[in-house]
Amino acid sequence: MKAPILIIGAGLVGSLWAVLLAKRGYQVQVFELRDDPRKAGFACGRSINLAMSHRGWKAVAKAGIEQQIQEQAIPMYGRLMHDTKGGLTHQPYGKEGQAIYSVSRGGLNIELINIADQHPNVSFHFGQKCLNVDLDSTTALFESRHNGQQRQVKAERIFGTDGAFSSVRRSLMKTPRFNYSQSFLSYGYKELHIPPKSDGSHALDKNALHIWPRGQFMMIALPNPDGSFTGTLFLPYEGGSSAFEQLNSDEAILRFFQDQFPDSLQVIPNILEEFHENPTSSLVTIRCSPWRYQDKALIIGDASHAIVPFYGQGMNAGFEDCTILDEMIDTFEGDWGKIFEAFNSSRIKDANAIADLALRNFIEMRDKVADPDFLLRKAIAADLHERHPQFLPLYSQVTFSHIPYSEALQQGLAQDQLFEDILRLPGIHENWKSNPEVDQLFKAWLSKQPSSTAMA
Amino acid sequence: MKAPILIIGAGLVGSLWAVLLAKRGYQVQVFELRDDPRKAGFACGRSINLAMSHRGWKAVAKAGIEQQIQEQAIPMYGRLMHDTKGGLTHQPYGKEGQAIYSVSRGGLNIELINIADQHPNVSFHFGQKCLNVDLDSTTALFESRHNGQQRQVKAERIFGTDGAFSSVRRSLMKTPRFNYSQSFLSYGYKELHIPPKSDGSHALDKNALHIWPRGQFMMIALPNPDGSFTGTLFLPYEGGSSAFEQLNSDEAILRFFQDQFPDSLQVIPNILEEFHENPTSSLVTIRCSPWRYQDKALIIGDASHAIVPFYGQGMNAGFEDCTILDEMIDTFEGDWGKIFEAFNSSRIKDANAIADLALRNFIEMRDKVADPDFLLRKAIAADLHERHPQFLPLYSQVTFSHIPYSEALQQGLAQDQLFEDILRLPGIHENWKSNPEVDQLFKAWLSKQPSSTAMA
Repeated sequence: MKAPILIIGAGLVGSLWAVLLAKRGYQVQVFELRDDPRKAGFACGRSINLAMSHRGWKAVAKAGIEQQIQEQAIPMYGRLMHDTKGGLTHQPYGKEGQAIYSVSRGGLNIELINIADQHPNVSFHFGQKCLNVDLDSTTALFESRHNGQQRQVKAERIFGTDGAFSSVRRSLMKTPRFNYSQSFLSYGYKELHIPPKSDGSHALDKNALHIWPRGQFMMIALPNPDGSFTGTLFLPYEGGSSAFEQLNSDEAILRFFQDQFPDSLQVIPNILEEFHENPTSSLVTIRCSPWRYQDKALIIGDASHAIVPFYGQGMNAGFEDCTILDEMIDTFEGDWGKIFEAFNSSRIKDANAIADLALRNFIEMRDKVADPDFLLRKAIAADLHERHPQFLPLYSQVTFSHIPYSEALQQGLAQDQLFEDILRLPGIHENWKSNPEVDQLFKAWLSKQPSSTAMA
Repeated sequence: MKAPILIIGAGLVGSLWAVLLAKRGYQVQVFELRDDPRKAGFACGRSINLAMSHRGWKAVAKAGIEQQIQEQAIPMYGRLMHDTKGGLTHQPYGKEGQAIYSVSRGGLNIELINIADQHPNVSFHFGQKCLNVDLDSTTALFESRHNGQQRQVKAERIFGTDGAFSSVRRSLMKTPRFNYSQSFLSYGYKELHIPPKSDGSHALDKNALHIWPRGQFMMIALPNPDGSFTGTLFLPYEGGSSAFEQLNSDEAILRFFQDQFPDSLQVIPNILEEFHENPTSSLVTIRCSPWRYQDKALIIGDASHAIVPFYGQGMNAGFEDCTILDEMIDTFEGDWGKIFEAFNSSRIKDANAIADLALRNFIEMRDKVADPDFLLRKAIAADLHERHPQFLPLYSQVTFSHIPYSEALQQGLAQDQLFEDILRLPGIHENWKSNPEVDQLFKAWLSKQPSSTAMA
């Protein structure tokens, strides 16, 4: 039996990481602030559904629960845009058959905790508030939320998987020259429940991610297995006529939805109740470095790189952290000093890239998906990929590949230049199919790309 | 008598701000962590000298102590670069007669405290550690460092002038959606004292800022009125052969100085003692927003925008905060809600710009000042300014003007393009004087600049 490891935070990343370490024979203790979700259930009302894609699936497969999750996951093959008259436009995410999958955060978390808990070398401790982490002695102090009792836990190594407001990171912040930034959008979000129809079926097309793009703001909806949808309204906190601060009366709320999302009122019967009862939550991007303290502590997932939800990559990125670390255990034969150093020096740029991509995608979702030029670019990109498989559109690199995020971002910027030229071709909206000029521009562009990154 | 105002931090910005508020009849209480520098003296060994320029002089004049400071200030008309053989190159800062002024932080601070203290409506409270600031009730809790006694201080309004590690900012950080970043250079700095010669005179040319530029690192020295210089070595903490971590023996330190700064050894007789006794300090850039809480609290100076010292603008920027706020008291007729809002919405972009400019200038000082192309650019820029006064080089905009930093940064980027073209002219190093092609490029460039910002 190897030396004991302490994981602080039993969310998605923490419980997955416990599984992977347990499989390798490490002794693992997991401490979590909240109560056991298997008994207490999951708090609702402020969690955007998860969209599992390639990077997430790989990690779930490593944990051995791919099949259980697949049974609950709902494939979304593309975006379905709702205009202010209720008209619909569809835009596929990838090739035919490719999809991102709507999964329930709570269900996935419980599966992962169950799998981890089956290992005799893993123990879970719920309702334990982390008061302090002493990095040098790898000792953490916890207080029970139920009886106030405090206990010191000494570990060989500490992993902080305790989310955007990580207490392990708070200890790292006290070390010299720790770089840190927290940056909030001026937007908030509010969950709005779309119940099943009376026959139990979904009230909207269940195999799509629904978007009501309105330029400066938007609403989205993702399907749940019980026939419902989780809708989410993203709106500026203040400023202009469409902002949370303006929606300060029932009349204003109803008028806003009638003007902006009239078709949604048919599927959200109790909009006022939903609006008033669900909190308005903020959207933060957190970046920091270093992520490790010597070979003693490492923060992963949201604790080291919280991002906005618009690329559907928050959980996927955290799970990929686990995949990469797990592979590094082999590469460096369990030498944690080397593992932490390699992970810290290679992964931070990828975390920064997906943070940037997620911020970019907010503009894409709320504004560009309603733009004919944008939809045309997506169609031409898909067509190019079909005919030249080595060309992989940015969205597919992020969502349907394991290409490092930082390379995908670089590729995306290069692709922007290509499509700027293509969309300038005369009559392109009508003549893009089998247009030899498109191919010419593509080949000229491709010849200028570094060969290693142009290929996917 | 107007309502009482609490200033937390009696450093340069806090004591200047106390003077300006006192002059307007506000009741002012100033609390400071350190002891009264008039009695305790100033801690030495880790303060780079200040370089007072236009923005600082304006504020000092407002406080009425321009003359006292001038008597102690030493003009530095340019940079004097030392190569590894002791050879010297001079580069003027501005037009003939223009200079930045080496002033002592301690002397300036004491002058400002004295001036403020002469006002009957100002009281100073030294040795008071700020434990907490309750923003909503504008109440701060202090603890005496001498007897541990705690006291609550209730104010009408609170100004945080408590520096890069501000406790007022720590309270702002607890408010929703506070944006914050702290970013450290991978470099540290160490002060090295250069004593006067035996006859009391300066050991180096006293009217210059001395630079030993070495590409990835550098040393600088600024003159003091007592005949000494304050030298400062800037070096990476680790990595490569020239880093603090490599200088781990007397032999390594001596060899490093002999190789890199041989002429400095003639003026720093006790280099080993200096090196061992002075701490290695870090260099941080801090950005945040908002800077205010309602009309109740505002952070200014390093508390809201700490920058690296390479443009000599840290104090100047903090003093300019005071100048702008003082002018806004007139503009908004003492309506602090409007003043805080206007200051917050206009000044943050300037603070970000000078933060960026200061980071850029580190590369300029440690590397580019040794580059003939760079020195040629400076010479051509000075010549252009001479002949076309509406053209003001970036350095002069920052140092010898009151143009907002964000406009100067924009101008600087535009000027980079101009000089890229000019330096590409064939034979430019020999034929730049009275070269009609330079004038042609300049006029073409000027015609493309927005008229409001091209004029200085």
